[in-house]
Parts: sequence; C-alpha cells; structure tokens
Amino acid sequence: MNRTIYVSNKPLDEAKRIWRQALTETNFYGRFPVESIRVDDSLGRLTAEPVFAATSSPSYNAAAMDGIAVHFEDLAGASESAPVCLSRDRYQPVNTGNALPPGFNAVVMIEDVHQASDTEVELAMSAPPWQHVRTIGEDIVATELILPEGHRIRPIDQGAMLAAGVTEIKVKQIPKAVVIPTGSELIQPGEPAKPGQIIEFNSRILAGSLQEWGADARRAAPVDDDPERLRKVILAATQENDIVILNAGASAGTKDFTSMVLADLGRIIVHGVAIKPGKPVILAIVNDTPVIGLPGYPVSAFLTMRLFVREMIAGFLGMEDPAPQIIEATISRPFHSSMGVDQFVRVTLGNVGGTLMATPSGKGAGAVMSLVRADGILTIPAGSEGVGAGEKVAIELVRPKVEVDSTLVFIGSHDNILDLIANQLHRHRPSIRISSAHVGSMGGIMAIRRGEAHLAGCHLLDEESGEYNIPFLQRFLPALSLRLINLCYRQQGFIVRKNNPKNVHSFRDIAENQLIFINRQAGAGTRLLTDKILKEANIRPAEIQGYTHEEYTHMSVAAAVASGSADTGLGILAAAKALDLDFIPVAEERYDLIIPEQFISDQKVMAVLELMVSSQAFHGEILSLGGYDLRDCGKIMYRQ
Amino acid sequence: MNRTIYVSNKPLDEAKRIWRQALTETNFYGRFPVESIRVDDSLGRLTAEPVFAATSSPSYNAAAMDGIAVHFEDLAGASESAPVCLSRDRYQPVNTGNALPPGFNAVVMIEDVHQASDTEVELAMSAPPWQHVRTIGEDIVATELILPEGHRIRPIDQGAMLAAGVTEIKVKQIPKAVVIPTGSELIQPGEPAKPGQIIEFNSRILAGSLQEWGADARRAAPVDDDPERLRKVILAATQENDIVILNAGASAGTKDFTSMVLADLGRIIVHGVAIKPGKPVILAIVNDTPVIGLPGYPVSAFLTMRLFVREMIAGFLGMEDPAPQIIEATISRPFHSSMGVDQFVRVTLGNVGGTLMATPSGKGAGAVMSLVRADGILTIPAGSEGVGAGEKVAIELVRPKVEVDSTLVFIGSHDNILDLIANQLHRHRPSIRISSAHVGSMGGIMAIRRGEAHLAGCHLLDEESGEYNIPFLQRFLPALSLRLINLCYRQQGFIVRKNNPKNVHSFRDIAENQLIFINRQAGAGTRLLTDKILKEANIRPAEIQGYTHEEYTHMSVAAAVASGSADTGLGILAAAKALDLDFIPVAEERYDLIIPEQFISDQKVMAVLELMVSSQAFHGEILSLGGYDLRDCGKIMYRQ
Repeated sequence: MNRTIYVSNKPLDEAKRIWRQALTETNFYGRFPVESIRVDDSLGRLTAEPVFAATSSPSYNAAAMDGIAVHFEDLAGASESAPVCLSRDRYQPVNTGNALPPGFNAVVMIEDVHQASDTEVELAMSAPPWQHVRTIGEDIVATELILPEGHRIRPIDQGAMLAAGVTEIKVKQIPKAVVIPTGSELIQPGEPAKPGQIIEFNSRILAGSLQEWGADARRAAPVDDDPERLRKVILAATQENDIVILNAGASAGTKDFTSMVLADLGRIIVHGVAIKPGKPVILAIVNDTPVIGLPGYPVSAFLTMRLFVREMIAGFLGMEDPAPQIIEATISRPFHSSMGVDQFVRVTLGNVGGTLMATPSGKGAGAVMSLVRADGILTIPAGSEGVGAGEKVAIELVRPKVEVDSTLVFIGSHDNILDLIANQLHRHRPSIRISSAHVGSMGGIMAIRRGEAHLAGCHLLDEESGEYNIPFLQRFLPALSLRLINLCYRQQGFIVRKNNPKNVHSFRDIAENQLIFINRQAGAGTRLLTDKILKEANIRPAEIQGYTHEEYTHMSVAAAVASGSADTGLGILAAAKALDLDFIPVAEERYDLIIPEQFISDQKVMAVLELMVSSQAFHGEILSLGGYDLRDCGKIMYRQ
Repeated sequence: MNRTIYVSNKPLDEAKRIWRQALTETNFYGRFPVESIRVDDSLGRLTAEPVFAATSSPSYNAAAMDGIAVHFEDLAGASESAPVCLSRDRYQPVNTGNALPPGFNAVVMIEDVHQASDTEVELAMSAPPWQHVRTIGEDIVATELILPEGHRIRPIDQGAMLAAGVTEIKVKQIPKAVVIPTGSELIQPGEPAKPGQIIEFNSRILAGSLQEWGADARRAAPVDDDPERLRKVILAATQENDIVILNAGASAGTKDFTSMVLADLGRIIVHGVAIKPGKPVILAIVNDTPVIGLPGYPVSAFLTMRLFVREMIAGFLGMEDPAPQIIEATISRPFHSSMGVDQFVRVTLGNVGGTLMATPSGKGAGAVMSLVRADGILTIPAGSEGVGAGEKVAIELVRPKVEVDSTLVFIGSHDNILDLIANQLHRHRPSIRISSAHVGSMGGIMAIRRGEAHLAGCHLLDEESGEYNIPFLQRFLPALSLRLINLCYRQQGFIVRKNNPKNVHSFRDIAENQLIFINRQAGAGTRLLTDKILKEANIRPAEIQGYTHEEYTHMSVAAAVASGSADTGLGILAAAKALDLDFIPVAEERYDLIIPEQFISDQKVMAVLELMVSSQAFHGEILSLGGYDLRDCGKIMYRQ
C-alpha cells in the first residue's frame, strides 16, 4: 500500500485564522469590484456607494386630494353661516397629483365644495396655507441620503431611487464561483449507474448553496481522475473566477492527487482540519484565487463549504458574515464526539410541550437525506467528549423557527403509512411538517418518556400475555396520562427475492441452509417478533448468519435483500412490494400510536387523527399498499 | 363639479370575505396548474406532488473508507498478539465510494492495514460484517418519500432527488401577474419631469413585491387616460395573466374611469374599503381573472396590494398565507386613527435599553421614503380611535428582527451630518443601521425622556442665559444620568434663491416686503432662534407671512425656497448649498448629542463616538459641506 498520508489535523480556529490571513494577503477582501447598473436591474444587489437624491419628490407643489385649488387668503373667515363664493378665475379643479396652478396655495377637497353655479363655488370653511398640498420635497429632498453604502436593494428602494431621479447606480460586483466535480466514477443524473459509479449531484447542492449565499456560481463539467487534465481545468478556472471549489479529491485515497496538483500550481494553506465531517479539506491559493478542495461525501462537502466559504462571499462583498440564527434546545439522546475534533451534528428539532427538543441524526456523511431532514446544526467543540441526554445545547437553525414550531415530532417504529401521513398533511395543511425518526417501538416509548415526541408508533408483542403494546406502556410509562390509538394491523413476514429462490419459509430454513439474514435493531417490534419465534423454535441467535447486522427500517431490510447482501429479513409487505420483492407471511401484528394526553388537543396531532378517522382517500392509499387492515384505525385501544 | 362619487366604505373583514368568495367561485384557488421541469431547474419551486425515490442510494454496497475490502469471516479472532495474514486474493484495495468487490463483506481502514509484503497484509483486529460499508439504500431506499407535495425546493433537495434517480419532477406553475400603470401624467424614469408629471416608479415597487411573494410578475407599458385604450389593455392582460394589477385610477377624480371600464368588462366585487391608506381600492373579476385597481400613491398602492394580493399568490400555489412575523413593541407617541377605519401605520423600531420602541411615521401616503425607512406596520383596528404613548402594540415586521435589534435610534434635530454618519457606519459596520427621526431638538429631548432613543441631537439656545442645551437638560431631564457631547458648530442663516433676488437680510425685510417665509415646527432649535430674533426685533409672528407653514427639516425649508413656494426660511448652510441656493448668515450655533449614560457603552453608540473622535475622512466629508466647525467634535460639554 504505497500511499502517502499527509493530511494534517489543524484545530478549526487556527485553520480559519491562517486561511483568513492568506486571503487578506492576496487582497481577496480588498478588491471590491464595482459595476454600474440600471436601478431597474438592481433588485437584490448591494449598493457600492451611498445613493443620494438627484431631484426632489414631488418635484412640484402637487394637489394631495381631488378638489379645487384656491388662494387660502380668499377663504379667510369663511364659515357655515358665512360661506365664501369664488368665481371661476379664483379656483381651479385639480385631481390628486396635479400641479398646483401658479399662484394658488391650497386645495379644498371635493367633498367640501358646493357648486353654486357653472362658474361659481361656495366654500364654508377657511383653509391654512398649503392645505392638502404636497409641497416640493415633501417626500424626498434633492441631495438627501436615499440608501447607504452596502444596502441590499428591495423593490421599495428601487421605487425611492427612481422617485429621486436616480436611474443608474453603482453596485458591488457579485463574486464569481465555480464548482468543479472530480472523479472518473461520476456519471450524470439520468444515466444508468453501474456499481462503483456515483451520480454527480454534489455540484448542484454546492453551486445552489453558493448562489443562496450571494455568489454567482456555476457548475463545471466533471473532470476525470487525470492530474494533467485537472491542472489545466484548475488553472483556467482561477483565471475566470473569484472562488474555485473542487469536489472531491481532498482525502488520501489512491486517486486523490488534487493536493499534489494544487501544491504544484500554487500554495496549499491548510490541508486537514480537526473537524468531523470534513477533516481532509484543502484550502489553497492558486493564481491569487482561493481554491477549496472539499471532501467527497455530500454532507462533508456541504458542511465544510459552509464553514469556510460562506464567510468568504460575505467578506468579498464587504459585508459582515451573517449572524447565524442560534436557538437553545434540549438534546434528546446522548451523542459522543471525539476530543480534539469540532464535530458538526445534523439535528431535527421539535417543540414538544413547550420544550424544544433536538434529536441528532445517526446517519453518516454520505446520507444526503439527513441534510434534507435537518432543522439545525449542533456544534460539539473540540474540548468536549459529547453531550448527554437532557443537556441544553445551542443549535444553529437551517430552517426558519416558525417551521420548526409547526413540526409534529414522530419517533418510533417505522411504517410506510407515515410517509403517506406526512404527504397528506403537507398537502392540506402546508404549515404542518412531520419530522419522523425511525428508532423502533421501544425507542419510541423511551422518546415519549423523555418528552421528545408528540407521538410514537409501536408494535410490541408481550411474550407472556400475548398482548400488544399495553403491557409495555404500563411498565415503561406508568405515570403518564396517554391514549393508545390504533393505526393499523399489518402482515409481518420474510422478505425474499422474487420467486423466493432460497426457498425461505421459516427460521429453521435460514439456520439449516446457512442463508444470510438481516436483522432489525434491539427494541424494534420486529426484533421482538424475531426473537420470540426463534425462542419458540429453539434456535439460538448464533445459528442465524447476519443476526448481528442490524438495520433500522423495514425499507432498509428490503433494500438489503434486493441488493443481495442478505437473503431474507423479517419485515412488512409494503416494504417488499415497494422494491418488487416477494413476501412470505409470518404473522399479523397490531401497530398503535401512543399519544400523551397533553398533546391530544395539539392542532398538529388533531390533524393526524382527523386524517385517520375521516379521510377515505387516505385509507384508499394505505390499502393499495397491501398487507394492511384498517378495521380499528383511529380507535382508542387503551387509556391511562 | 359633475363627478359621481360612488366609492363605498366596506369594512376590511367583509371586503376580504366577499373577495375570497368571488375568487373561490371563479375557481382561482382550484386551478393548480402544474408543469414538468428538470430537477436542475427546480430551485425555489414548489413540488406539485410528492417525490419518491426512483432508485436507492447508494445503489451498490460501497466502501465507506479508503482501505481494503475483506471477508469479515477471515478476520475472526485477529488481535495484536495474533494478527491474521491475508493473501492478495483475500483482500482488495478500495477507495471511499468504490463498489465492494463481489463476495467481500467488510472494509478495513488503511490506517489499520500493515502491508507485510507486496502481496500480503497483516490485520490485528477482527471486523463485524459490513464494517465501513455503505450498504445499498443506506441513505435512500427506492420508493421512499423524498419530498412531500407543496415543498419549496432547496439545493440540498435537488441533490437528494438526483441521488434518488429522479431527474424530472412536477412543480406548481407560478402565477403570472402584470402591473399596468395608468395615467397620462406618467413619465419614465430618466425623462425630465414637468410640473404635473410623475415619474412612473410604482410599477417597479409593485412588480418587485409580487415577485418576492412568489409570482412571475412583469410591468406593462403605462396606459394614457383613454377609456378605449384601457379597455383593450385590460382585456388582453386578463387573457395572458392570472392576476392583473392596475395602478392607479381607483379613486373618484375626474379622470378616474377605471371602475367604469371594469364594471363594463366584468364584475366589480368591491370598490372602496374602510382602510387607510387604500380606501378607493377596486377588486374586480374580468374574464375569470382577478383585476385589482390600486390607489395611486405609492404607500397606498403597496399596502393595499399587500393586504389583498399576497394571500392570493399563496392561495393560487395551494399554500397557506405565510404567517406574518409579529412582535410586541411600545408605541413612543400617540397616534390618532378614525373610528370605522382599519389604519395601517408605518413605524420605525428600535431596541432602546431592552424595550422595543415603535415610532409611527408622520408622513403621508405619497412618501415612499417612509416605506424605505419602515421596520414594521402597525394596524389600528376599525374599533379603535388610536394608540396612546407607552401603549403596547403588535407590529408586523417588514425587516428581519436581527436588523431591528442592531438599529441605533436617533431622534431629534436634523443635521446633514447624520446622513454622513449613517453611511459611514453602514460602510464599516454593515450590521449597524441608523434610524433617524427628525422632530426637532425639543422632540429629541422628549424622546430621550420617554426612553425612545439611544441619542438625540439638540441645538437649543436658552434666551435668558444665552447658553446652549444645558439649561434644557436640567429642566426636562433632571433625573437622568447623561452626557452632552458636541457634534459641531454650524452657521444658521436665511436660505434664499440664487443672488438673493428678494434682498433678504433680516426679519424686518421679510415683514416689510411681505415676503413669504417658511417656518420650522415648534420645539425646533431653529424655531427658538427665529422666535428669539423676532422678539428682539419687536416683530409679531402675524407680521410674517407663512409663519404658520411649518417644515420639519432644514432640507425641506431649502426645497420650499428652491421651488418658489417660499422666499426664504432660516436654516443651515449645508441645506442651502445642497440645493444650489444662497445663504445669508445670521448666527453660529452649537449642535450637541445627548446620550444617556446607560447607552454610552452600547456598541452602536460607541461606533458613532469613535467615528466622531478618530475618523479624519469623516471630518473631511463634513467640512466639505461648508458652514461647519468641528473644534469641539467629540468633546464632553456637560455631564449629569
């Protein structure tokens, strides 16, 4: 294995300091390129200098009402009992916005005008000078400051500038950025993927994010693993852009020669930072242009870019880095972190009974869905070994707080119906979101106990009584007022490849034929069922190959079977059907929702219950999945 | 005056109810047009149906680390003391992301591999099955819900869809809207304006706002006051758009025939709503298309459109109207409102000593700058006669809360230096904003007393002692710890037209020659100076024509002189110079800043003081305005 491993492990603070210094030295922050544009094209841009009014608005004395222009002096002493009569040469009809005719100095509203004849009006009130007149400069006085430097232009600002006679302004040039995907394994979306090939989607996430942070970002064509080609592409990119992003090639794999190329073309400022994810990031300067080599995993790439590049865009534009939106939350379960490493953890958030609970994602840096679902980022600093359950933590929001507050938190056993609920709810009540964490039935009960979730899904069979769920509630949630409401009955069975090629009909078949099984995690209802059946059949776990390989959802079990990495696993029909697999029924089981009494009247929970009880369309969708029976859907099975 | 005044006065709630019903009847909310687009083009769009994964990700079992692929069974029992040796056919080098070669079922990190020879490795640890392997579907399982219906697509969502093999999706079509300016008085920005002509800038504010609310909005060419032409344009617009906005022609002026045309082409649902501003709004349906006739004033037009059209766009897209961001604030001064009218008041906000203070704008509906400066909108409901000073009110934010919190609130006498401070601060500390209300020196002292402002500008001459400012502080703020810090000395004098055509040298000249004077409001330092000089010269206010016409800033006084609506007024040199007017010096006066002790160490206040004390560039800018002396700038004049 002749590989040079040379990635350093700089503390984040130090890496940031060194990098900022290098950027300062190459004058990255001092360039302030400016361009002149039309005000009409300036929406969202940043002013490069203060904008002062060129003319006044109104630019003439204008009638502020529909009515007649008068000389206020003529109306002196006018009253109901002694109205003043004006002849046609002493008044003039005006509409709102009309210029006051020369010599006139007040307006009387049409409602107060009595037309005595075709050429005479009668007025029963005196008027102060300039009544109902918008005098010159009432809104804007020429030379007045309209917008300061560094202001982001809104539609109303465009209106004010145009009103002030300004039609062209100087704005800050937007930094140009390019995202260059690298790697011979990359294929474009839509192309069929062979094993080892990866759909190139990272560049969309990265370029889109750069755009959102204020850069003019584009995606370049992927570059194969060819140092000579990479060198040419990087050089050209630095000539045309203010920021160059490479993805990936930052780590120390055999084909990761990006750092060699960068060291050769320019200077590597930092290679390797004590962060997780994102450790192998490269920060380099080539051709006076910052080049950032990001790791390959989407989560690592995104979080690392966020850490180093977002502030660069702000700095380039002469803005302060936007202050992150930080909220305090309670962490729902312990999360371990290595000393010496700043760790960035995706969390989902939910306002459960007034407490904002943060649940860390258990997924790896390859899991783009964990970012889709994330509500915030928890930073565990290098000096900490992690956070304990119930600890207060500061979370940087990646989703507006109002969305977090309207999130229904479901934690527990996974069932495909949950996707249908999430979608139906979002269709009819777009403001309600569902965040669901699939941690098994026991995990759901524990989440309810810790006050982490509004509701939990549960299908736990009590071996002794043969009863579902209730004995577990009595044992683990004895003090809590709650309702147990049935969602469905469903078939559990062996998920097998089409036509059941390994001929699986029982755990005995699995043990005797040395088939590879894929298990569910401890605490899952399906795991309890597995263990119960094994016990009844007198089979030891050690006889089942793959017993220790645990997955967290039915769909993951089905995916493992579909891929051939396992021959079978226990799961539900819907999961088998979804991946076009076969299904050997083993048992019908009951799946209930646990809802603490205090959340029964929560409008988000009520929306779910309403859906369960009264939506025929929803029931139809469920039944079409197959393997479900809704005879008790919405029924209260137990109350305590 | 043969005008038909037919504008009704429907309560807002009723108008909204009738309008929503009319929209429902024309199926405006049920159209849901959908289009298929590439995921690459979908940023910011709303999903029209749920997006499910087409393929799993990873789509093969992938190495999660750089290292070697192994059979976990081979490593059973391996330890430091009894390492296992693998020959070349039992291991295979892999990089992160590579497909696991067939038959292999675990990966050992390169750091743990000891290369014993060219063809053999030694491993000192056993491995569980699937160690460091991303199994098929670990991130995304085919058929899994990626995004629910009605979800706004972010870059990360694009990545997830592409990772899941989805390249094209159905999104909701964006409603098409057009803004049609009407009126023969309109000219395009950049054209020279004659009296009575108005720069057409409203359509930019309206179309830009529609765009921000999610519509695909464009501006049409202005239509002259010609009913036939208007009819044609409206008809064509309803054929091509989902929403048509007319501006203006909503009121009852002689040329406002929009409602006649609309009644003729379709149905007028509402004409006239009990709101201020915005009363004459027209809500009509033409050709099954909503047509909204907005009033002409920019503030009225914008606020009315916000009231009726923002929720239409959300409804068209099947979304709930975005919840307004409401905060509680304390109103700083009384604001009167008419019973029976829902009034919408622009306010500026400032966090002063922990209390969020809301100050209503005193400007009319023509004042676009009052919207530029607004931080929020206060609604005074129809059943209320207004709000009293110190009352708690609910404010809808129109600017992010974080910007409001970083706003330095200046209330008091106006000086052009304030614009320079605002701009300099924003340049160097973009996160700090200045909100300044020009209410005169006395108004500033009262604002400090009510806790509304961080600092106030003041130039009040005490008649008896001849001393500036201090006697007023002792009289009106006796209990408050504060510092009085000098900003500048400045010239006050008569602002006159070029070459002083009316030969103004004293108030005696003004009285004797019946010249038109323009005054400052009671409580302004300049007003005190005016009154003192008049008294010394034995001139009664009644002898001064225009004495009762009050303006609030030096610039407004200068603008009145420039326009000819006044012959002269008392003001500062900078204002005269800005509008190319002449200036007859009367006196030098002292202009100080009042800063309560509790705000001295506020970082925003400190930034201002730092600028005053140490910025040569800033001093240079001030001196170039003329009429200023900075001999004491930054000096503490008094402390209590």
